[in-house]
Amino acid sequence: MTTTRWTIGVDLGGTNLRAGLVGPGGGIRVRDAMSLGEDKSSSAIIASIARLVENLRRQAKDPVVAVGCGVPGIVDACHGIVSRSPNLPAWNEVPVREALMGAIGLPLVVDNDANMHALGEACCGSGVGHTNVVMLTLGSGIGGGIVLEGKVFHGDQGYAGEVGHLVVEPDGEPCGCGGRGCWERYAASRAFALFANRLPPRERSDLLAAAGTTIERLTPEVVADLADRKNEVAIGLWREFGRYLGIGIATLLNVLGVTTFIIGGGISRSFDRFAGAARESALSHTYACHVSRLLLLRAALGDDAGIIGAANAAADSVS
Amino acid sequence: MTTTRWTIGVDLGGTNLRAGLVGPGGGIRVRDAMSLGEDKSSSAIIASIARLVENLRRQAKDPVVAVGCGVPGIVDACHGIVSRSPNLPAWNEVPVREALMGAIGLPLVVDNDANMHALGEACCGSGVGHTNVVMLTLGSGIGGGIVLEGKVFHGDQGYAGEVGHLVVEPDGEPCGCGGRGCWERYAASRAFALFANRLPPRERSDLLAAAGTTIERLTPEVVADLADRKNEVAIGLWREFGRYLGIGIATLLNVLGVTTFIIGGGISRSFDRFAGAARESALSHTYACHVSRLLLLRAALGDDAGIIGAANAAADSVS
Repeated sequence: MTTTRWTIGVDLGGTNLRAGLVGPGGGIRVRDAMSLGEDKSSSAIIASIARLVENLRRQAKDPVVAVGCGVPGIVDACHGIVSRSPNLPAWNEVPVREALMGAIGLPLVVDNDANMHALGEACCGSGVGHTNVVMLTLGSGIGGGIVLEGKVFHGDQGYAGEVGHLVVEPDGEPCGCGGRGCWERYAASRAFALFANRLPPRERSDLLAAAGTTIERLTPEVVADLADRKNEVAIGLWREFGRYLGIGIATLLNVLGVTTFIIGGGISRSFDRFAGAARESALSHTYACHVSRLLLLRAALGDDAGIIGAANAAADSVS
Repeated sequence: MTTTRWTIGVDLGGTNLRAGLVGPGGGIRVRDAMSLGEDKSSSAIIASIARLVENLRRQAKDPVVAVGCGVPGIVDACHGIVSRSPNLPAWNEVPVREALMGAIGLPLVVDNDANMHALGEACCGSGVGHTNVVMLTLGSGIGGGIVLEGKVFHGDQGYAGEVGHLVVEPDGEPCGCGGRGCWERYAASRAFALFANRLPPRERSDLLAAAGTTIERLTPEVVADLADRKNEVAIGLWREFGRYLGIGIATLLNVLGVTTFIIGGGISRSFDRFAGAARESALSHTYACHVSRLLLLRAALGDDAGIIGAANAAADSVS
């Protein structure tokens, strides 16, 4: 699926706003971006989005028919309302679609940013040729997007795909969502401090000495550097990361019956460090009939996925 | 959704075969059943199904337009092939649809029995009025069926909804699927022996003495009887059952964004003993925005659900 008309895709992050003018065929023709600055009220951000959209719109050869906007947090995509956005607290229960449509005067789709990333990869990235895909965006949490036959799957209220809160350890680590043992505590950036804390004291202190940092700063980047330097403990931490990633993938595979998984987000730069362990762990928790079908793919579009997905959703909404 | 033409629904179990002639409107007009007997080869069972269908067909006022058949095990519903059936080992990799169509000469849908149950409840049972439902059939395992907008959701190959193998304890009990810590070890019939094994020795022996049985025979029925007699340990085991049931429900809710769950199967007779704990546990593992929406409903159609669902799937396939 590619757009056949001019659309604009907007990808709102916790600190930046990125947008692109997408032409017939699905490619980004013009990009624009801005920092959100200090005023993160919903009215200030909506004004910024409107300005960015207006700039891009002037550069289109034909009329822009619709705008898509990906927003971090839990989004009621059916009504275009942001229910809760941990990174943009002022956005709780904001009717974003209504407010933005008033400001830009174009048909508008608002959805969760991970859903837009998933749609972008599914339509124009690693997912091309696969009917159904699950995309996992690994960063400070795990963003999830489920794309079935070219469309984002939303469930009852637009809340589907909150896979970061899938339970992998019933009595495990507390999570910001109020639950315990959520997947994103074990297979996103904060996992490494957790795993290091489980090491024998001597191994742990050697690891931190080699990294030259404290346990709280044991980021994926730091552990990746150590693994590059053949530090066995660091290599083991990536395997443990893969093991937990695979447990959640197995659950998604068993529930959804979807066998194509695209891994994106900053941590996917270390794809080769964890993908083997993830695959092995996923297969050890699924039926044998899935073995030959499971595909773990690295995302192809990087930061463009959100813009392209949002533009695709916009095009689809007016088709 | 109800059928508008005469169809036949067949529900194949591990020991019995049940079928019904379903008239316009969705109600079962005539029922028939038989025991599978000792010859459980696929050819013997297919001949039995064909005989049952022929008997029912003769009793229809108008021509029967299609037949639906629910089969236990993992079914590739897209191609009508039973990939694996633990209860009917001779059925592994059997192209059931092809063989049955040759025998009965009518359009035919073959699907997993839990999917057919789910469709029956969604269309004509507790799910009426809900757009999307997940049905959980609690028995020796956990059968799952996901019905979205009146249709069974199949995923890539018809394998979606294998929720019994969702991982709730990564290093937990071994399961017949080859994995560990699968949901159905903790929230289906074998859970009670497991929970009893975790009790302090004194409590455990008191429980078994009160039940007059061994730990292997600690079935849901036995524990239900004890709970009825106000045995506090037995009541606690049902709460533990509910706690694990809720953990899996939370995962399904987070992944699918579906908030209506229908609980069926033999263990649902004890619905009131575990539903409160299940709800509490599910909500402790999900976002606050789901709290008011989560519905746990008891299945309404009993054993008829499979027949009605299969008949509905048949009607839908020729509409």
